[in-house]
Amino acid sequence: MAISEKNFKKLKQIVGADNITKTYEELFCYSYDASTCGYLPDAVVFPKTVKEVSEIVLLANCDKFFLIPRGAGSGMTGGSIATLGGVVVAMNRFNRIIEIDKNNFIAIVEPGVITNHLHQAVEKEGLFYPPDPASSTFSTIGGNLAECAGGPRAVKYGVTRDYVLGLEVVLPTGEIINTGVKTAKGVVGYDLTRLIVGSEGTLGIITKAILKLIPLPEAAMTMMVVFDEMETAAHAVSQILRRGYIPKTIEYMDNASIRCVEDYLKIGLPIEASALLLIEVDGKKDELTKLIEPLKILCEQLGAKETKIAKTKEETESLWKARKAVSPALFRYAPDKINEDIVVPKDKIPDMVHKIKELSSKTGLLMATFGHAGDGNIHCNIMLDKKDKEQVEKAKYALDEIFNYTLKLGGTISGEHGVGITKRDYISKEIGRDELNLMKRIKSLFDPKGILNPGKIFPV
Amino acid sequence: MAISEKNFKKLKQIVGADNITKTYEELFCYSYDASTCGYLPDAVVFPKTVKEVSEIVLLANCDKFFLIPRGAGSGMTGGSIATLGGVVVAMNRFNRIIEIDKNNFIAIVEPGVITNHLHQAVEKEGLFYPPDPASSTFSTIGGNLAECAGGPRAVKYGVTRDYVLGLEVVLPTGEIINTGVKTAKGVVGYDLTRLIVGSEGTLGIITKAILKLIPLPEAAMTMMVVFDEMETAAHAVSQILRRGYIPKTIEYMDNASIRCVEDYLKIGLPIEASALLLIEVDGKKDELTKLIEPLKILCEQLGAKETKIAKTKEETESLWKARKAVSPALFRYAPDKINEDIVVPKDKIPDMVHKIKELSSKTGLLMATFGHAGDGNIHCNIMLDKKDKEQVEKAKYALDEIFNYTLKLGGTISGEHGVGITKRDYISKEIGRDELNLMKRIKSLFDPKGILNPGKIFPV
Repeated sequence: MAISEKNFKKLKQIVGADNITKTYEELFCYSYDASTCGYLPDAVVFPKTVKEVSEIVLLANCDKFFLIPRGAGSGMTGGSIATLGGVVVAMNRFNRIIEIDKNNFIAIVEPGVITNHLHQAVEKEGLFYPPDPASSTFSTIGGNLAECAGGPRAVKYGVTRDYVLGLEVVLPTGEIINTGVKTAKGVVGYDLTRLIVGSEGTLGIITKAILKLIPLPEAAMTMMVVFDEMETAAHAVSQILRRGYIPKTIEYMDNASIRCVEDYLKIGLPIEASALLLIEVDGKKDELTKLIEPLKILCEQLGAKETKIAKTKEETESLWKARKAVSPALFRYAPDKINEDIVVPKDKIPDMVHKIKELSSKTGLLMATFGHAGDGNIHCNIMLDKKDKEQVEKAKYALDEIFNYTLKLGGTISGEHGVGITKRDYISKEIGRDELNLMKRIKSLFDPKGILNPGKIFPV
Repeated sequence: MAISEKNFKKLKQIVGADNITKTYEELFCYSYDASTCGYLPDAVVFPKTVKEVSEIVLLANCDKFFLIPRGAGSGMTGGSIATLGGVVVAMNRFNRIIEIDKNNFIAIVEPGVITNHLHQAVEKEGLFYPPDPASSTFSTIGGNLAECAGGPRAVKYGVTRDYVLGLEVVLPTGEIINTGVKTAKGVVGYDLTRLIVGSEGTLGIITKAILKLIPLPEAAMTMMVVFDEMETAAHAVSQILRRGYIPKTIEYMDNASIRCVEDYLKIGLPIEASALLLIEVDGKKDELTKLIEPLKILCEQLGAKETKIAKTKEETESLWKARKAVSPALFRYAPDKINEDIVVPKDKIPDMVHKIKELSSKTGLLMATFGHAGDGNIHCNIMLDKKDKEQVEKAKYALDEIFNYTLKLGGTISGEHGVGITKRDYISKEIGRDELNLMKRIKSLFDPKGILNPGKIFPV
């Protein structure tokens, strides 16, 4: 449903002529996200205040045109893409860290704040905002909230949901509501806060967030562990947790990921290794060695080929650079890769990895896996050339098998990327009919005219 | 709306003759909770399976009679009371711990399991379920979920909401739904799990819960700290947290609470003290002294009159016995006491305590405060004789003032007890009109005929 000239003018009146566009070049920049799906919106508006957002929404709800909220467009599942046209509401100008309350361990921020900017700002004050998606240097808090972003630190610190105390939200019908509390606890009324978090921009536009902070750990120490067998690595992860250790991160990369990154960065990764773990511990500076040593010994006992504790800041950074480069490196290898974020029970990681290997052999498609082993959250990347129809068919088959097997193992088809458009056709595999109906009715209750981020999450 | 003889018979057919009652003596046992509000239900049913619960709900929804789900009846706000009559659905027979999965750190339990029984069962396996309301020896997991129970350990470990991964729920329209995941992460679809948690039995009857567990800390160490001034104690709490220490608990009792408990237990509490803190740290056994010593020194530097680290198991137990006895001891002193659970930003505790003291002087009513200082969660108890009309009026005035001041300080009127019936007339002070409307519409969406736990949360 294309926006009328009249409504474009009205939007211009709301946000000012400088803060709206419909030139092709600019629309193009807002036509895609990290899912590589591309749809041109009719226009892009850049509101600055909650009042402006509310007026935009009231207009859209009255004249029935679509609105698509957008942070940095770094989402993996097309959540911010205008698949059905409409106006992209770009929240970049909501970029203020309004308050960092050191005594009460909260930050009040606007949704356009870059995640990493918040990290830096609170860390200066000796505070810590743990959620740290791999995209943190460019993704926004608003996007993180909409998708309930996770990241490597989740194994110890939890996900975005666990750090949201309250929200200011513009409902699809234009009302500005406040949810939650500014305190450590609060149970008055229904939990609207966590209903909005992870709803992928379909229930409201977040205009402010009250986030929980914790004391900043003094220091961290990183160790690389190399394994000859993926199964041995997975067993080590399981044993680390089983024995009561909770490292800050337990990340892993398989051989394909290691090779791609090494080819990309040339930093001397062990390209013969079947699996590599990155284990980081944090705490008081003088206790780090005591924290990491037992993990080193345990990994060695359990069959690690090599363990290497980073001795300097440079060594640490180089290891993390490798981990963060996996996704870009794989993109370089195959720009059309499909990147999934299935989660399986931690002790089922070997089964899942084995299945993926099998599917890779069967289809002849290269599949790289890496991710958050401590959570059972596996990023499975299927490399393909979308122009090759046979490859596309094979990838579709493999994906189907991967999702089926994930669910068979008691897992979920998305740990942190959300459903968006790329997984909406698969949601019924995981969510039952009654549950999905209930969710759809909640969507209709919030958004009776269906104007906000249409076509997402639910099968069309 | 009284239940008909015909429907009583139908319910009997569903659960069996032994699992339903309407004799006065038995109904009386299900007529009250810890809020001391009393209303006789029409009948009590004791289902054993989710199928039975679903059949009960279908019947009630079809013939329109009220259902009131109930765990142990230990709630503080009347959430499980049949204020409008109807049938109490007592979940006590749902008392199985179905699975404790050591490798994946989850427990699958039925809602009638006593919280403390779950604690014991998982701790035997070296695992830990942190939520620990003061009622944990008799309250049930179902009740804890319905109210999103907190407790002393929340300062370090969070509340019930933070340990629920998924639920099986019977909706007010009879459907059996499954929400959430069995894995550490999961973001597929709307977060129905956390919408149900804390909804006080108004959106569905929980029949199963998938709970997150963590490794059991090896040991704990408790310290009592005595202060001459409440303000000094509150400042110490603030400073402990500000400097990055996160003890397992930071509980406090004021002078009135100390005196009541000492009178009740006679265990040698310092009855002249203005405030007493109970600080517990946990971790590896050989590190506990290192963890607690800096807190001891800090408290002393900040004006503590006395610090005493419990040296034996008996000493530790005696301290916790004192803390857990506060509520019963106050009940003994004034059976009609009002027990509130306001939360204020941590650094506003002194202001709040000062205000309560002022109101106590002004009204002549004894007010005792104790609670979870580390969360800013204050249990303010107003002692009164409900037969004395003047006292009742004064208490009402004080309560109004306390809630107003709590909200003025940026707090919430309930941290862990919920709204139920005792706070429904105050909810509009905290929750705005649009927000409350949205919540009511969610209630109607789940429960179009209004049969499940009517009269709770929302002002009538």
